[in-house]
Amino acid sequence: MSSSSPSRSSEIRRDAVFGRCVVFSPARARRPSDFRSHSPASNPNPSSKPSCPFCIGREDECAPEIFRIVGGDGGAGEWKIRVIENLYPALRREAEPPKDVPELGPCKVSGFGFHDVVIETPYHPIRLWDLPVDEVGEVLLAYKERILQLSRHGSVKYVQVFKNHGASAGASMTHSHSQIIGLPLVPPSVSARLNYTKEVFDRTGKCSLCEIQSKDILIDETDHFSAIVPFAATYAFEIWIVPREHIADFHELDHKKAVDLGGLLKLMLQKLSKQLNDPPFNFMIHAAPLELSATCLPYTHWFLQIVPQLGVIGGFEIGSGCFINPVFPEDAAKVLREVDLST
Amino acid sequence: MSSSSPSRSSEIRRDAVFGRCVVFSPARARRPSDFRSHSPASNPNPSSKPSCPFCIGREDECAPEIFRIVGGDGGAGEWKIRVIENLYPALRREAEPPKDVPELGPCKVSGFGFHDVVIETPYHPIRLWDLPVDEVGEVLLAYKERILQLSRHGSVKYVQVFKNHGASAGASMTHSHSQIIGLPLVPPSVSARLNYTKEVFDRTGKCSLCEIQSKDILIDETDHFSAIVPFAATYAFEIWIVPREHIADFHELDHKKAVDLGGLLKLMLQKLSKQLNDPPFNFMIHAAPLELSATCLPYTHWFLQIVPQLGVIGGFEIGSGCFINPVFPEDAAKVLREVDLST
Repeated sequence: MSSSSPSRSSEIRRDAVFGRCVVFSPARARRPSDFRSHSPASNPNPSSKPSCPFCIGREDECAPEIFRIVGGDGGAGEWKIRVIENLYPALRREAEPPKDVPELGPCKVSGFGFHDVVIETPYHPIRLWDLPVDEVGEVLLAYKERILQLSRHGSVKYVQVFKNHGASAGASMTHSHSQIIGLPLVPPSVSARLNYTKEVFDRTGKCSLCEIQSKDILIDETDHFSAIVPFAATYAFEIWIVPREHIADFHELDHKKAVDLGGLLKLMLQKLSKQLNDPPFNFMIHAAPLELSATCLPYTHWFLQIVPQLGVIGGFEIGSGCFINPVFPEDAAKVLREVDLST
Repeated sequence: MSSSSPSRSSEIRRDAVFGRCVVFSPARARRPSDFRSHSPASNPNPSSKPSCPFCIGREDECAPEIFRIVGGDGGAGEWKIRVIENLYPALRREAEPPKDVPELGPCKVSGFGFHDVVIETPYHPIRLWDLPVDEVGEVLLAYKERILQLSRHGSVKYVQVFKNHGASAGASMTHSHSQIIGLPLVPPSVSARLNYTKEVFDRTGKCSLCEIQSKDILIDETDHFSAIVPFAATYAFEIWIVPREHIADFHELDHKKAVDLGGLLKLMLQKLSKQLNDPPFNFMIHAAPLELSATCLPYTHWFLQIVPQLGVIGGFEIGSGCFINPVFPEDAAKVLREVDLST
């Protein structure tokens, strides 16, 4: 909260995907290029940690394994990625799935669901963006594989893939991992997002996600994906990676596109880490509900959202649902375009 | 994440006000009575702070004053509460108010609006809940007075009153204060809340807030207000203070009810502070939009929400909009009912 950016004055924006309002307020900001995380999020001790159950050789201390991806030579006990059950699951796979969830009003149903962990590497000091591009792609394909498995369970209605990096972003383990939760209902805010893009589509004939890729907010693009700072970013330096082609389901990803996406995801995480001093962050895949009717396809377009955690959410955000972002998307995109990873 | 509560198994609940889903997951929790904040939020140095511009005698270092409330004897320079402009406002009162905000899709408008600060006491070490009950009531009446002033400005459509206590709840000043933001539009999530209570009302003929006061989740009540842990609390030990009578607007509060509410608010903040080791918290007043049509009155009922910040919001919550709460509302209500403030 020191000097204000002379070229911008505050603005309220609403996006076409969530229909959320964001107050852009440069008066509350440092210069966009001065943003840094105060406490780097990665493991402070980069050597392997003897007590970490996600490290290679300690597999028997984990909850049951669902599947693993092994390397090319596939020696005994060797693996590159493991998908396991969460030892402290938020939902219980052994519970009775709810039969009926009333559409409206207060209700309670059993805590049926799946809560899994994707261990992205056997080695403690390796972060997701340290992996070679094709191995980041393999992590994405592990998500896909697990989503497909869950989609065959008729009682799972929505799958949330997410990664928490750093304690203040919700990570309780420092070993690089992501999580997958399979829910017995479509979360109301997912329905709200689809209803909003439907309303926009009904009025304009256009998909909200196909329409947002302007030059000003573009960071980089590959054959199949664009990385942008969204027009009404709720967090400073928030990034969306959006398929350039209109696709509803993340789990349609094939090997070639997974490697393409892996490269862009790696690049964005490298840029955030370098520019913002290894900030805590979350990423989330905003996918379609598993049983999506064909009529919803024209306005359903998956994307991956990355949010660095540089500030805190306060009473204004909780109360009004509006966010305050001190960095204009166009400025954040410019800073991120120009990060030099070679030095 | 040590021992699970033997008497509860996980559950998904949806509330009748926000229509949000919450996963109650005791497997991820300590015992409800063991919850403590790791870092107390109050000013670690309880003496007055020489550099604090909110302290008595330093009024000229603040942004302009809007009004003050003086004590009974009202000596020169004496005040009990000051309402001032925010020195780093998120919105600018001198901007041109937006003429037209399109109802749907992406848009940007000027950052017109008001962002004020309520200094709740002249003295640095005093917390809101240290004030005598009638002085807490006066703080509430200061909110009311400022809301009424803003409501006379035709371009203000919604007023968000909130308090951030502790740095990790968003407070940048330790001196006890709250904030008031006047917005040139009704936030989409406020409209969504009212639409949800309307749908419930249309189906059941009942107001969602009138209907939630069961014994299990009641902490305490006064002549005019109930303090409850909501049925689908999104945060552990979240509290709602709800008028027992069906009232749409906070700013209808009269002096007698303000003192009544002040007493209950003080008691709840004392209980949270004692039970949870002075946690960072936010409170928010969920009010009606300023220009509310009479047809909305049957399902519009203001309330005050208090959320202690004991955990962090991670990728699951950001992605799905569902929250994970390790403490069942009935357990939290029991713990809070039984807090003994006399020891």
